[in-house]
Amino acid sequence: MSDTTTNPVANTAGLRGATAGDTALCTVGASGSGLTYRGYEVTDLAEHCNFEEVAYLLLNGELPDRKQLDAFVAAISNGTELPAAVIRVLEALPASTNPMDVLRTACAALGCIETENSFAEQYTASIRLLGCLPSMLLYWYHYSHNGKRLLCENDNPSIAGRFLQWLHGRQPDPDHQRCLDISLILYAEHEFNASTFTARVICSTLSDLHSSVAGAIGALRGPLHGGANEAACDMLAQWNSPEQAESELLSMLQRKDKVMGFGHAVYKTSDPRNAVIKSWSKKLAALAGDSSLYSISERVEEVMWREKKLFANADFYHASAYTFMHIPTKLFTPIFVCSRVAGWCAHVFEQRNNNRIIRPSANYIGPELRSVTPIAMR
Amino acid sequence: MSDTTTNPVANTAGLRGATAGDTALCTVGASGSGLTYRGYEVTDLAEHCNFEEVAYLLLNGELPDRKQLDAFVAAISNGTELPAAVIRVLEALPASTNPMDVLRTACAALGCIETENSFAEQYTASIRLLGCLPSMLLYWYHYSHNGKRLLCENDNPSIAGRFLQWLHGRQPDPDHQRCLDISLILYAEHEFNASTFTARVICSTLSDLHSSVAGAIGALRGPLHGGANEAACDMLAQWNSPEQAESELLSMLQRKDKVMGFGHAVYKTSDPRNAVIKSWSKKLAALAGDSSLYSISERVEEVMWREKKLFANADFYHASAYTFMHIPTKLFTPIFVCSRVAGWCAHVFEQRNNNRIIRPSANYIGPELRSVTPIAMR
Repeated sequence: MSDTTTNPVANTAGLRGATAGDTALCTVGASGSGLTYRGYEVTDLAEHCNFEEVAYLLLNGELPDRKQLDAFVAAISNGTELPAAVIRVLEALPASTNPMDVLRTACAALGCIETENSFAEQYTASIRLLGCLPSMLLYWYHYSHNGKRLLCENDNPSIAGRFLQWLHGRQPDPDHQRCLDISLILYAEHEFNASTFTARVICSTLSDLHSSVAGAIGALRGPLHGGANEAACDMLAQWNSPEQAESELLSMLQRKDKVMGFGHAVYKTSDPRNAVIKSWSKKLAALAGDSSLYSISERVEEVMWREKKLFANADFYHASAYTFMHIPTKLFTPIFVCSRVAGWCAHVFEQRNNNRIIRPSANYIGPELRSVTPIAMR
Repeated sequence: MSDTTTNPVANTAGLRGATAGDTALCTVGASGSGLTYRGYEVTDLAEHCNFEEVAYLLLNGELPDRKQLDAFVAAISNGTELPAAVIRVLEALPASTNPMDVLRTACAALGCIETENSFAEQYTASIRLLGCLPSMLLYWYHYSHNGKRLLCENDNPSIAGRFLQWLHGRQPDPDHQRCLDISLILYAEHEFNASTFTARVICSTLSDLHSSVAGAIGALRGPLHGGANEAACDMLAQWNSPEQAESELLSMLQRKDKVMGFGHAVYKTSDPRNAVIKSWSKKLAALAGDSSLYSISERVEEVMWREKKLFANADFYHASAYTFMHIPTKLFTPIFVCSRVAGWCAHVFEQRNNNRIIRPSANYIGPELRSVTPIAMR
């Protein structure tokens, strides 16, 4: 389970422990701090900032002052409308489509219409993605599910607020808006994870930002990367009481079923993001008058620690928190995209700033040199 | 310039020299052989096989017998028609779109409609991509440029033959068809190049084949990866005679301009694919009654070796060969996609067969731990 093994053969698989480049963006599990963005603890950022400030920090290196933030927020809000061609693409995709495939395709399509023709355009293109990824997702969602053409209006200056407003068609509860805002902060950046590394490999050929982000969405789609909060949600939804949850969870553990939302490849004793989202889940539970989902979640966390010494990671309490906000489960990982795009774009900037094409070697294990037998003699 | 430096700091950049995994698919620059697919020299395959045999070899590990090949060819040919939703997507993309962006988007859209729901579907999904990537490209090309809706009929059993037939609207010259067929063989596979590595990183999260291939297309789009044959073509098109070419090339070298189509990151003295495509370019030149482009190309090759000891790589004579087939320059890199997709899919199979999520580490060079100053005090 160790990520810092010194066995060179073990290191090869998945490049675990191999240094693939420099970053000034993030530390994960460095001693004394769990997760930092540009030197700030993620918990500190979640307490004092909104997501737009954090996105600005990731893209620019420093937190904005009021004037800088206002301009940044205005630029994002002005980029929520979708080009007609992207709308045509979204309307072609049926309700049965995996929403991650929708975002991958819509991002690819946006790159056809608003192509990033030079790196001087990277900052504007990133702001545009922050503004319109939620539009893409919810336009497709309402159109394919209800035949309704969403007007992606920017009457709420917060990405989290707009998301909830567009989803539910009403002003969001301020606590819901702040909880989603904080969730976006928690998911915004995580060093050289597989989707971010994908974006860096793609842009290392000097390709464009949309290719990089579309590729990253495709990587995040995989069940070993994004999607753990959706799986945790599906699991929790089966149970009606903490007692039932405990008994069925114990059976799962006995059968060695995988329990999603626990443990982490890098963190060893806790995930710094868990306490933050857990306290918000508790708050939203009280607000909703919930008497089961939160207590079931707490019991599951308790049993997993008692039985397996596995801690809840960032994803686990997202399942209940998002449920209290009435967000459909299949939109959980796409929300991750709307957040992590800030990190992906910042990594693209960084890779381009000191680029060498990422082209590792392979260890050949195939057949020895041989000669072709023409097909008539095979 | 060395790819096998032992300086650990230099190794970090671009993962050069780092082993990122095992492969049985390909060797590049191994002693005694330039480029092998599953143990066969690429020159041997180009002499004795067609592209479909080579694609079968890459996907299955062994060359097909006649019956296996016939079934494989029939399966590809039966997968040339496009779903209505993909057609809607293609019709939304204007003629000014970068054709690589078209393929990236159309592949992403295909994954929405014909989603690979389990790895048991990977082989069928790969055959489908071999069949319909040329359809996507040429449907969009004819529709956006001439308003014509291409019927992607399969009346020619060869991918190369269909491509030329759909492009020009007539039966292709047999020499043109065989030259394009061989070109597809030469471009089909190249170990852990950046686009293939992208596909492997994406599928290492257990994501789907279409996400992997769409990401790979995005990587190949970059000017450090695909596109050298297009650049070589643009350069050669400026010159009218070998003498003019020599004089202007010498000026370029004096100005230290980059000359595309020469040298290689791995090969040191020659590219094994060059002799093959060069002989075909010569043949097509004679067939076309060309008296300038081929001789200009030969002179450029001669001068580059004399002045810089740089050899023509696979891309250089592709510029003239494709031009003799009347292929528009902007379709050169997309043809690379229609070929390399065989290698990408084979690498996805291999990665899945012995998977660990590809998640390297980063070397942190950012700010020390610091505390957030709330915005009112910034």
